[in-house]
Parts: sequence; C-alpha cells; structure tokens
Amino acid sequence: LPFEVKILGSSSATPTTERNQSSQLLNIHEQFYLLDCGEGTQLQLLKAKAKINKIRHIYISHLHGDHYLGLFGLISSMHLGGRNAPLTIFGPRGLAEIITLQLRYSETILTYPVNFYELDETPSVIFEDDKITVTVIAMNHRIKCYGFIFKEKEKKRKLIKEKIPAEMRLQDIVKLKNGEDLYSDSGELVIKNAEVTYPPRHCRSYAYCADTLYDERILQFISDVDLLYHESTFSSELQDRAIKTHHSTAREAGIIARKANAGMLIIGHFSTRYRDLRPLLAEARNEFPNTMLAFEGELFSIEEKFLTNVPSGGN
Amino acid sequence: LPFEVKILGSSSATPTTERNQSSQLLNIHEQFYLLDCGEGTQLQLLKAKAKINKIRHIYISHLHGDHYLGLFGLISSMHLGGRNAPLTIFGPRGLAEIITLQLRYSETILTYPVNFYELDETPSVIFEDDKITVTVIAMNHRIKCYGFIFKEKEKKRKLIKEKIPAEMRLQDIVKLKNGEDLYSDSGELVIKNAEVTYPPRHCRSYAYCADTLYDERILQFISDVDLLYHESTFSSELQDRAIKTHHSTAREAGIIARKANAGMLIIGHFSTRYRDLRPLLAEARNEFPNTMLAFEGELFSIEEKFLTNVPSGGN
Repeated sequence: LPFEVKILGSSSATPTTERNQSSQLLNIHEQFYLLDCGEGTQLQLLKAKAKINKIRHIYISHLHGDHYLGLFGLISSMHLGGRNAPLTIFGPRGLAEIITLQLRYSETILTYPVNFYELDETPSVIFEDDKITVTVIAMNHRIKCYGFIFKEKEKKRKLIKEKIPAEMRLQDIVKLKNGEDLYSDSGELVIKNAEVTYPPRHCRSYAYCADTLYDERILQFISDVDLLYHESTFSSELQDRAIKTHHSTAREAGIIARKANAGMLIIGHFSTRYRDLRPLLAEARNEFPNTMLAFEGELFSIEEKFLTNVPSGGN
Repeated sequence: LPFEVKILGSSSATPTTERNQSSQLLNIHEQFYLLDCGEGTQLQLLKAKAKINKIRHIYISHLHGDHYLGLFGLISSMHLGGRNAPLTIFGPRGLAEIITLQLRYSETILTYPVNFYELDETPSVIFEDDKITVTVIAMNHRIKCYGFIFKEKEKKRKLIKEKIPAEMRLQDIVKLKNGEDLYSDSGELVIKNAEVTYPPRHCRSYAYCADTLYDERILQFISDVDLLYHESTFSSELQDRAIKTHHSTAREAGIIARKANAGMLIIGHFSTRYRDLRPLLAEARNEFPNTMLAFEGELFSIEEKFLTNVPSGGN
C-alpha cells in the first residue's frame, strides 16, 4: 500500500517559471490528501494526472497567499467536475470566511459538501480513521502557521501460517496478532508469540513542517519520523533575513532532521533568488546527509517494511 | 505610440496545460492596464516579461473565479516587489471585500495604496486622462458582469509646417489644430484649415466583452470599434448549452463583430472541451472574416494611422 508524497510546488512567496508555490499531494493507501494549495495548484494536479475529485482532505498551513490562493479555483473545478463526495478542509481561522465569501459572490452552490475544520489547539489529533492519524503542530511564523504529521496506525503482528494450529480459536488469533503469548487455563505457556508471528509492519510517518523559524520545540512531535519536509527558504548566508522573515535556512532544516532522527529530509519553499539549489542542498546535507530537494513532479515514496529484531510480546 | 493587447489567458472555467484563465494586458501609450486576472496570471505576466509594477489599473469583469483568482497573488507580488505607485482596481461589488479580507488574514500592510473602484452604473465613463477614456458597459451573464471599452481621446489636426506662416499667433495655431478656418478681423477667410493641416490621427479603440449571452444591446457602445474581444465559449453545436450557461458561441461573436462594424475580432474564453480551436475560428469567420483566436502570448496591435479623406473643419 502506497505512502507517498508528490511535490506540486516548491517555491516561496512568488512563483517562477520553473517552480510553483507550495503544494504537495499525499497518497496514503490510495486515499489522497492535499497539503497547502498555492496559486496554480490545480494546474499542477492536472500535469501530475491526479484525479482532483479523489482528494479527500485539504490541509492549509497558514493564510499567506502562496499557501492557499489555489484553493478556491480547485474547489470550483471539483464542482465543475461534478464531485459528490464531501471535502474536508483543515485550515486556520479565517479560511472558511474567505472561501464562503468567494462562493457567495460567485453565486455558486457546490455540487458537494465542504466541511471546514478550524485549526486551533496544538498539538492535537485532528483526524483519524482505521488507517492513519493526522496530528497538527504549531510552526513559528509571522502569522499562525501549522504543521501536519501523518502516521499509519499501529499494525497487528502477522501470523506465520504454517506454525499456527488449524483448530485455533478466533480469540487466540486476535491475541497473537496483538503480540500476546498464549497460556493454558492453568497458566502454562502454550505458544510463545515470537515463534508463530512476524513483527508488525513499521508504521510509516510523514511530517510537513511549513513556514517556520528554526524552532526545536517541534522535535518532540517529529522524532523518528520516516520522512520530514522542512521549509528552507534561504541559505545560511541569509541567516539574518531568515530570522527577520520567520523562515529557516537549509542548514537549520538539516539540523532539525538530524536532531529529530528523521529517515529522510525534503527541503523546499525556496526563495526565488536561488536559481541553482545545489548550495542549499549541500548545506542541508552537511548536517543531515539523507536530504533531497523538493521539485515539481518529484515523488517520495516510503516503502512498506517489516521491522527487524523487534522484541515480541508487549503491546 | 503603442495600442496593443497581449493575451495572457484564453481558457474558460478551468485551466488546461495549454491555456490559462482569462487575462489580457493592454499597453496604451506605454501605460499598462490589466483586464481580468484569472488564477496564474502573475506567472503569465512573468513569462511575457511584463513588469508587474508598471500596471496602473486592473479591471475585473465579474466574480467568477476564472476571472479574478489571480488578483490577490498579483497584489502580493507587487508588494514583495516593493511597489510604491498606487494601483486602481475596477471591479464588481464584493471584490474589495474579498481582497481586504485576504489582506487582513495574511496580516499584510501593502507597500503601496490600492484604490478600489466599485462598478455600478452602465454605461459610464469610469476613467479618463489626457490620453484615453475607459467606459464600462453591462454584459449579460449569470452574475453581474461588465465589459470595458478603451478609446484614445480625440486628437488635434496636424499642421503642415511648410504651409504655416512663420509669424502665426499661438491662438491661431490652436484654432487650426482644432480644425477651424482662420478669418481676418473683418470676417474674410484668410486660411482654409484643410489646406494647411493634416486630418487628426484616428482614435484607436478596444472593446473587451467578457462573459455574456449573445446580446445586441452592446452594439450601440461598440460600434466601429477597431478591435473587439468577444467571448466565445462554445461552438454553435452547443448553442443550447451557451444559452443555459449565459455564454456565447463563436458564430454569435462573429455576428456581433459584423453588426458592430468592428475592425477586427478576437475570440477567446474557450471551453476546455475544445483542443482544436479551428472549428470555432471557421464559424466566427463565416460571419466576420477578420477574426483571430486568442492564445497565450499573442499580441494584437492597432497601428497608428491618419484618417484619410476626413473633411476638414468642424470640431
């Protein structure tokens, strides 16, 4: 089952002819989630051959235009495409007001329901189903800004079929999948879990850290994340400007990834002043070697994997 | 002095990979005016190497997203570009409210003043300076929609220098430029205007007729226009759909151009269903041969020309 991030835009405040404004499309188990929606995102989705009406949720980090100006156009195109399925939009206070006003003046009655979820308390779990949880955290920007962490739910251990007696009771199977050993009524160990089950698959996770000053307070929430996106508007040469505008440098993104023990780092939200991004990449890699540049159309996929050498038992 | 229209977007409700949403850049005497501003317009301006901070006015025809969603991004980029010069935005009721709300939530204090001019009465002259007048007219669409007519102001006749006596008084020169003959104090004809002046240059004009049902009521305002843009969302095969959605067919655009005695017709605002636009062009040309397709990057220029055989005298 896929767990992947497609980059739709990697530019910051203004677009360039090569880079679009912030947006990413997540595919988790064939459910689609859009992260930010800068101007032109619907065109990027078209180029990526994504089916816009399969998008289930849209998460908007903050109300600077480069992160949400494509939203109304996308909503309109979903409408023109005859969407029926509800759309949930998670965003800061004010987003619902803006979109509602735009709908009112265009006199549009959408073909589908839109549910607005106003972000407020952090950290908090803002969505969960049987597959994933989504947690919102606070970024440190000039205006209220949020980050989002997507994580697969804890999975069951996998039975080694040839080692499971045919007549096993359903409740015992559940116990084994939950990692428990099986005991007889008299309390003797009958089946040791580790001998008849494989460890559960790893719960994959992705953290999207939008516009922010370098702030270690996020580390506690993103530690051990498989894939980390962290904004990287400037190179260290413009450290002062990063501080002044509440943005991060590539080096700082690398430090965050290292301290969070992330599996991989994606840097993005590049200032338009950088035509050549290799210096930013080098700077981040100096702190955290497994760093990649966000660029339009790139797909980052986290493979499913079984954890190795995980002790059996316990919950 | 230029009088030209650059097409930035020719698509209707949704963009395609080849066509952007409605926007045109007018250059009249090196003053720049933007007509509509669909999503992605700032990128189109960038591709056209236009200097966004030279744009003096923006005219928004109506509040369907494909005509104004690029506006806030453009305003923001002008801000980031350090604009100082005031920007005037002409648009329907509601536009100022939307933009003001977006500015409020992004906590942006623009580096330049924005003046909103709310369109209301039609027809009316909404702008004039010493070079041009801009008149707003009513389109016939599902929501309030406006068209705009740009016209050079009446010009003076041009003196034929070698025929003008060296000692002529300033007030007589003014009279000649205004087309008057000169008389002596005793009332005798001294100089016949037509013999010492060339006719004035033609006053060039452009009419931008945005989303509309076929409606002959616009003819009185656009008659004899040099260059006419008329929306042409559908071909005649979809006449019913055109009526239902309050749009026009290419054939209808051609009829309007013919009845208005326009110099040239540009058709645009094409439905995304048309990959090949030649049938629409053929249909319009069948009614009005001098028709051209709007496409991204195309420049339509109205040459300066002296009117020929214009009788002298009169004002």
